[in-house]
Amino acid sequence: MQTIAVYPGSFDPITNGHLDVIQRATQMFDRVWVAIARNGEKLPLFTVEERVALAKTAVRGMRGVAVDVFDGLLVRYARRQKAQVVVRGLRAVSDFEYEFQMALMNRRLDARIETIFLMPKNEYTFLSSRVVKEVAALGGEVSAFVPRAVEQALKAKFRSR
Amino acid sequence: MQTIAVYPGSFDPITNGHLDVIQRATQMFDRVWVAIARNGEKLPLFTVEERVALAKTAVRGMRGVAVDVFDGLLVRYARRQKAQVVVRGLRAVSDFEYEFQMALMNRRLDARIETIFLMPKNEYTFLSSRVVKEVAALGGEVSAFVPRAVEQALKAKFRSR
Amino acid sequence: MQTIAVYPGSFDPITNGHLDVIQRATQMFDRVWVAIARNGEKLPLFTVEERVALAKTAVRGMRGVAVDVFDGLLVRYARRQKAQVVVRGLRAVSDFEYEFQMALMNRRLDARIETIFLMPKNEYTFLSSRVVKEVAALGGEVSAFVPRAVEQALKAKFRSR
Amino acid sequence: MQTIAVYPGSFDPITNGHLDVIQRATQMFDRVWVAIARNGEKLPLFTVEERVALAKTAVRGMRGVAVDVFDGLLVRYARRQKAQVVVRGLRAVSDFEYEFQMALMNRRLDARIETIFLMPKNEYTFLSSRVVKEVAALGGEVSAFVPRAVEQALKAKFRSR
Amino acid sequence: MQTIAVYPGSFDPITNGHLDVIQRATQMFDRVWVAIARNGEKLPLFTVEERVALAKTAVRGMRGVAVDVFDGLLVRYARRQKAQVVVRGLRAVSDFEYEFQMALMNRRLDARIETIFLMPKNEYTFLSSRVVKEVAALGGEVSAFVPRAVEQALKAKFRSR
Amino acid sequence: MQTIAVYPGSFDPITNGHLDVIQRATQMFDRVWVAIARNGEKLPLFTVEERVALAKTAVRGMRGVAVDVFDGLLVRYARRQKAQVVVRGLRAVSDFEYEFQMALMNRRLDARIETIFLMPKNEYTFLSSRVVKEVAALGGEVSAFVPRAVEQALKAKFRSR
Repeated sequence: MQTIAVYPGSFDPITNGHLDVIQRATQMFDRVWVAIARNGEKLPLFTVEERVALAKTAVRGMRGVAVDVFDGLLVRYARRQKAQVVVRGLRAVSDFEYEFQMALMNRRLDARIETIFLMPKNEYTFLSSRVVKEVAALGGEVSAFVPRAVEQALKAKFRSR
Repeated sequence: MQTIAVYPGSFDPITNGHLDVIQRATQMFDRVWVAIARNGEKLPLFTVEERVALAKTAVRGMRGVAVDVFDGLLVRYARRQKAQVVVRGLRAVSDFEYEFQMALMNRRLDARIETIFLMPKNEYTFLSSRVVKEVAALGGEVSAFVPRAVEQALKAKFRSR
Repeated sequence: MQTIAVYPGSFDPITNGHLDVIQRATQMFDRVWVAIARNGEKLPLFTVEERVALAKTAVRGMRGVAVDVFDGLLVRYARRQKAQVVVRGLRAVSDFEYEFQMALMNRRLDARIETIFLMPKNEYTFLSSRVVKEVAALGGEVSAFVPRAVEQALKAKFRSR
Repeated sequence: MQTIAVYPGSFDPITNGHLDVIQRATQMFDRVWVAIARNGEKLPLFTVEERVALAKTAVRGMRGVAVDVFDGLLVRYARRQKAQVVVRGLRAVSDFEYEFQMALMNRRLDARIETIFLMPKNEYTFLSSRVVKEVAALGGEVSAFVPRAVEQALKAKFRSR
Repeated sequence: MQTIAVYPGSFDPITNGHLDVIQRATQMFDRVWVAIARNGEKLPLFTVEERVALAKTAVRGMRGVAVDVFDGLLVRYARRQKAQVVVRGLRAVSDFEYEFQMALMNRRLDARIETIFLMPKNEYTFLSSRVVKEVAALGGEVSAFVPRAVEQALKAKFRSR
Repeated sequence: MQTIAVYPGSFDPITNGHLDVIQRATQMFDRVWVAIARNGEKLPLFTVEERVALAKTAVRGMRGVAVDVFDGLLVRYARRQKAQVVVRGLRAVSDFEYEFQMALMNRRLDARIETIFLMPKNEYTFLSSRVVKEVAALGGEVSAFVPRAVEQALKAKFRSR
């Protein structure tokens, strides 16, 4: 069986937690699409082009991984990619509820797409794009949480403000 | 990639909720082992032989599914089956926490085995082997929740008491 | 005993999940006020007049149900309607916490008004006005989630944008 | 409309938290059955006769309240009492999940019986029959948590051990 | 051991729930800094100067308590104050998750600062600055939830609108 | 201020997660009593004497830490030790609820004793005495989760079975 998975999100910006989930997904699926939602956030810090560039740099060399942009319904995008699976990372109970509801809604919209949940590494439990942006905005060190290119992009963003 | 998954549990007895998870797992993995824990419950209603027989009847005709028994550490069993993946069904927040902790422990014991979580069909949210046994013990109708062979086995068990 | 209940919310717009809760409330209370909060949302999609009109169409023919608008404190409105009960639908743990806190606050503000929680039908677990609006905005099919008049109103809104 | 409610439980023994829920239920329903499950606990501290006697003493003088025993399926009992409603008290998120699953199961078994959830008084959040028994067993003071007759019955039980 | 604690927040405005936590903290630490985040909220109702003044009035006479303002990373501020401990109040499960993630992040940023969680008094479970502002904005009575000076400041704010 | 804390539990057996909490408590309190509940578990694996011996070995050299046994109400024990504080470790939402209820009950029983919650190290999230015993019973490696003396005691227990 040729299995194709979609890993959707805002990736504003991509973090080590995201990369950990992607890495795990490549162990069980032949192809993993990192699908960046054009309008996932009201006021993204990075433009969609920047988010794509940072994600592409970060996944370079990972087997079977590609970065893409989507808008509209996730299930339609997944269908177009012939994906059987949508991958989501779970860190906390509150994540779980929201993710669960979205997965149920997506199943209603297209029953052929299955959502699965993976756990990122334990040390990334507290990690989210939002918290990384908050720490970076306050001048905190984020090199342990994001790839080097993202760290530099964050510095450039907040320096220019 | 040839992907092999293990779906562990007590299956005392197998329910339509379990079967729904198994069905979903077959859509994304080449082989799914329904792995019945010999000592998963303190006082099972059905012997391990009965649980295996009921599970085998229930999965008959499902592509790539096999029923097996295991004891000892789950990750060792998964390793022996050359599985990359342990599959778990998630219904509720409380499930989630326990499952999460077990998955983290299993990852510590063998980092090569990944645990993924699937959602059973919405209408099976309330379904568990325990609740099915309770309803059957009180003479309630369980035909909507378990395969026909399980329904009959439950009736036989509780009649003979 | 003549029992009067208030079912408050933004109803932006009313969904099949709301209607299910209203239906259940009519089974146990003599009168059910669907009380639309004038300022419940920062930026509602529908004006309060539109929300009232859609709700009135949706509850037409339901015994003992009336649609109304309120502003100010909910408990004051409930008191004015001589209601003993505020009805809330519960879908998820996160709902539960927020609802619980609001109910405790309302009890502090007026101990004579009791809040009760009902469960909507299982298949509406994932349903909220927000998610319906998101799906409709992306051109998804929402006919299974809202009454026909709401579906048309959503289409009109998003076409005109 | 004549409304009849059932409030089921083990009541081993009845606490001030239970009484608070019963009191609230009487504000909105014409009749409230305190329905003591004969086999609700594996090893109850009090016999079902003792639990009934303590509950009867505690509800004396409350309008429309009666104490009863049931075995078998709750929905069958509720049906026999011509009840429209099953009342449950909610204190915590973990309560909520279990209660939710039981309510969904009961709805599947008989869709005409609706389960509603009430909040006990804030100061009874931590209160359960189990915790009262633990404190009493260790010689702690429980007079703030249970009616006087229950306090005496607990003392008698633990003195005689 | 001389122990110093920081109790950070927006305090927009300070409530009786906050004061209860501060009071408890003084029982176990020699010094408690009420640290008001300059930019903790997007659109605070009160300026940082007003929030400081209200907090100072409220803690007057409490032994070992001082009010301060901070911006930037909390752990840096705590370090500057030679604090060993960050104090947080916990009311609900959803609080808990967010607080937990922030505490883990703070530990990553500075392992020498420990976060501890205290429970406010049971009757303040439902209390937050946000809910107090909502009730006050609708003309509700908040004298049971905030100190007298805060009550008057809220009235002045909403009268002038 | 001289601050004394009690850290109660079954410690059947003590784990690295417990030791991590004890270590953190010593950073903010002058004295920490590791208080082993004589009857905390129905069927402990280790006798109370064994649990004390293992805990004593594990905390050797930690400043201000002592191991003790208690029975009866925790608050009475804490009072006798002149402790102001009961320390509890929090790992998960489900922990949190139970701990919260016990802390509220303890506050009702003695308002002078404050319960505080600490987070163990992230990598111990999944760790509990129960799970360690399960893994050891199945012949799994537990050297990363418990002190060396506990590891040997577990091996001896399960070998002799």
